[in-house]
Amino acid sequence: MLNKMGWIYLVLFLFFIREFSDLQINLNNQHLNPARLFIGSFLLLIISGTFLLLLPKATHSGITAIDALFTATSAVCVTGLIVVDTGTYFTVFGQGIIAGLIQLGGLGIMTFASYFSYFFRGKTSYENQLFLSNINNSEKIGEVFSVLKKILILTFGIEFMGAILIFFSVRSRLFNSFSDQFFFSVFHSISGFCNAGFSTLQNSLYEPGFRFNYSLHLIIAALFILGGIGFPILFNLYTYLKYNLSRKFQKITTLNQMHYTPWILNLNSRIVLSTTAILLLGGSVLFYFFEVDNTLAEHSGFGKIVTSFFGAATPRTAGFNSVDSSALHFSTILVIFLLMWIGASPASTGGGIKTSTFAIAILNFLSIAKGKDRMEVFKREIAQVSINRSFAIIALSLMVIGTAIFLIASFNSEMNLLNIAFEVFSAYSTVGLSLGITAQFSTASKAVLILTMFIGRVSMLTLLIAVMRRVKNLNYRYPSEEILIN
Amino acid sequence: MLNKMGWIYLVLFLFFIREFSDLQINLNNQHLNPARLFIGSFLLLIISGTFLLLLPKATHSGITAIDALFTATSAVCVTGLIVVDTGTYFTVFGQGIIAGLIQLGGLGIMTFASYFSYFFRGKTSYENQLFLSNINNSEKIGEVFSVLKKILILTFGIEFMGAILIFFSVRSRLFNSFSDQFFFSVFHSISGFCNAGFSTLQNSLYEPGFRFNYSLHLIIAALFILGGIGFPILFNLYTYLKYNLSRKFQKITTLNQMHYTPWILNLNSRIVLSTTAILLLGGSVLFYFFEVDNTLAEHSGFGKIVTSFFGAATPRTAGFNSVDSSALHFSTILVIFLLMWIGASPASTGGGIKTSTFAIAILNFLSIAKGKDRMEVFKREIAQVSINRSFAIIALSLMVIGTAIFLIASFNSEMNLLNIAFEVFSAYSTVGLSLGITAQFSTASKAVLILTMFIGRVSMLTLLIAVMRRVKNLNYRYPSEEILIN
Ligand SMILES: [K+]
Ligand SMILES: [K+]
Repeated sequence: MLNKMGWIYLVLFLFFIREFSDLQINLNNQHLNPARLFIGSFLLLIISGTFLLLLPKATHSGITAIDALFTATSAVCVTGLIVVDTGTYFTVFGQGIIAGLIQLGGLGIMTFASYFSYFFRGKTSYENQLFLSNINNSEKIGEVFSVLKKILILTFGIEFMGAILIFFSVRSRLFNSFSDQFFFSVFHSISGFCNAGFSTLQNSLYEPGFRFNYSLHLIIAALFILGGIGFPILFNLYTYLKYNLSRKFQKITTLNQMHYTPWILNLNSRIVLSTTAILLLGGSVLFYFFEVDNTLAEHSGFGKIVTSFFGAATPRTAGFNSVDSSALHFSTILVIFLLMWIGASPASTGGGIKTSTFAIAILNFLSIAKGKDRMEVFKREIAQVSINRSFAIIALSLMVIGTAIFLIASFNSEMNLLNIAFEVFSAYSTVGLSLGITAQFSTASKAVLILTMFIGRVSMLTLLIAVMRRVKNLNYRYPSEEILIN
Repeated sequence: MLNKMGWIYLVLFLFFIREFSDLQINLNNQHLNPARLFIGSFLLLIISGTFLLLLPKATHSGITAIDALFTATSAVCVTGLIVVDTGTYFTVFGQGIIAGLIQLGGLGIMTFASYFSYFFRGKTSYENQLFLSNINNSEKIGEVFSVLKKILILTFGIEFMGAILIFFSVRSRLFNSFSDQFFFSVFHSISGFCNAGFSTLQNSLYEPGFRFNYSLHLIIAALFILGGIGFPILFNLYTYLKYNLSRKFQKITTLNQMHYTPWILNLNSRIVLSTTAILLLGGSVLFYFFEVDNTLAEHSGFGKIVTSFFGAATPRTAGFNSVDSSALHFSTILVIFLLMWIGASPASTGGGIKTSTFAIAILNFLSIAKGKDRMEVFKREIAQVSINRSFAIIALSLMVIGTAIFLIASFNSEMNLLNIAFEVFSAYSTVGLSLGITAQFSTASKAVLILTMFIGRVSMLTLLIAVMRRVKNLNYRYPSEEILIN
């Protein structure tokens, strides 16, 4: 069944990529720039998913159109917010559709982000690529397919190993049959690596029987951390492992010493890895400190550490929960707000403003405070275009989050600000954590949350690029003036 | 009495400036850079104010040290948040001290901001000036004193006219004596122009007898809008008026036609004025729309318009209220959050991230979305250093506001997020609006709010500049790299 579904996705995906490339090569024009194709493909996936979930055999007792749209958007955008319980409301067929949407959504975002980031870095700006990319010779297309192949191998490879580990980490007596346990493992491996946060368990990993299964928690955390660290770094890691394994193998078969090639991490990887490490460590310590007498009370010493680590890792932006979110201390919730907003790393299956954006925001005010005329880190200078882009992403995130909170507060004025803000942050950063009020939202509020998930996933900047008329290269220069900012 | 107090302030102020300049000229060293002098002078003012308010004759029945410190900080930082009622808790002597602190704080911030922005624009960056300014010849010092003179003339001129207008706009029978009415007018003119928001009325302008006095509301709004628009633009306006008046006078006395000199607004003024106009207009319309059946219900047609205008103008960042803030609609409160955060304009008596910072944040994502390689507005290019600075100010504002909310939520966990967030935004942007819970804060929370007011006033960036070791001009260049941001 895994293989069959896997092949169906693969064929669909390759077909989608083929269409995508064809359009680009043949219709190399202004109206079909990559930003529009990217947004269009996500919209198409969501609409198809909605219709599939509306099929009678997807649910036990039918579903409203808004709830089907909500679930399809949440799955394709790998958010994980739910309005109906995944495990009990949908049939296995319906759950299979959800897993498929998660897989395609996760692959879509990784592919798209890597596609532009991997080939054209340094040559032309990301924005120029979004407007009109330059893939018009067969050599480039070959290169694109080679990267896509690597993404697929990595994704399916990790998910396959994840599914096996999950299968053996859970107790068989909690499942009705072998195939149930098998489906559970595949579903959670896909949902984990894609940072989707969907679970067939009503209370996610807080479900009795799974609540204290720390090996399961660690396997799923490993999956979503790998998925959230981004393809460029994953690829680096893959190369590193492949090289080391082949070296070990050669050591056994031959006596030749290979000369050592150091694993050189680029600036991007260094920033992402150090920010991720700081957030995971700092988040875990804070979680432990605030929850030790609260939600952690029922856990053993080792369990407290695992649960703190899981609690700090999941808001960026996996969305599984191994504690009762609504029982969390107010201080913990505020820390989770920050972690959700920051989110995962670029070109990954995670959301949020991203670790690199957050790191640049901090480096920027530090270098200004030091009176530096440039931003330096790890003996490299960060290009101005990256700083401006970070600024734009942070400003737009505040704008979208603020607008969504404002609208939902108008539509559901009986709810309090904390709860509304939590769901909106969770939706924008495609986290999926919830204080449990999403299902009580009015249809208008659900629609706002659907839009927020979508905008959070494709990014407001990509949306703006898609709708705005591009400015040609400017062949003039106005006099430059400094503005009074204090 | 006005004259006497005015002269005392003037002497104190000139003494302060003299000290300030002396130190700078004589001790032209790293340890006493302008950022440190600025912060030090505010600290000194706050400490002196605290001791003065602790004097037995300042209050009717004594005051705790934390409340005196809170009130002095709120006055010097022209915030307007209160923990005890200004009119009933303090004696006239105490109220006079508060007015003095407001005046010195307001002048201090205007002077400091103008001082650096006015002379060195274009020559060296604002940050370099904060580290070590170059005032070391007598010509420069003369120029500095000429600007200071203009600031004093403008401030006292506007406040004088404001006091007269306020005096004649209020009904005499609401006051016990002529001197009461006189003190009321002077106090509210100073508090208005300095964007302090302190009032001797228990319910600010919502007080019965003043609630429907629309001419009073408009006079005070004019005062705080003028105070909040910034000295550079005020100076522009002053030159424009002086020129037009002398032209009119010449027209009468001679028959000579003077040739017309157009009033050229610089880029800074254009950005500030257009952003201010949009915020005032947009804010008023939203206020009217959300409150027409709520807090505006008791007002006449004209009154509804004046009260909407006042309600949209006061969060940026005057802090007077002509409606019951705690009765406002949830949507209105969210709009007020945004207006408070944006705040007034640079080099003014108002706070917040400032209109120009907000405008640049929007222009930045728009130009990136259009694929532009530079930021252009009003046929000028905005210098990169201004963009980075705006980014730093926004990032730091989020950091300080987030930390303050987090701390107060820990100290007063019984309060809800909306109320805490409102007081923190109000403190950081030196607004002074309140949902009425400041007085119920624990001592620890009051201390956090005191720090927030202070940081919001002197700005976190200035604080960082003051504590950080400056980096000398760098005589190398690392290779520049673009970071993956998506
Ligand atoms: K998620
Ligand atoms: K104020």
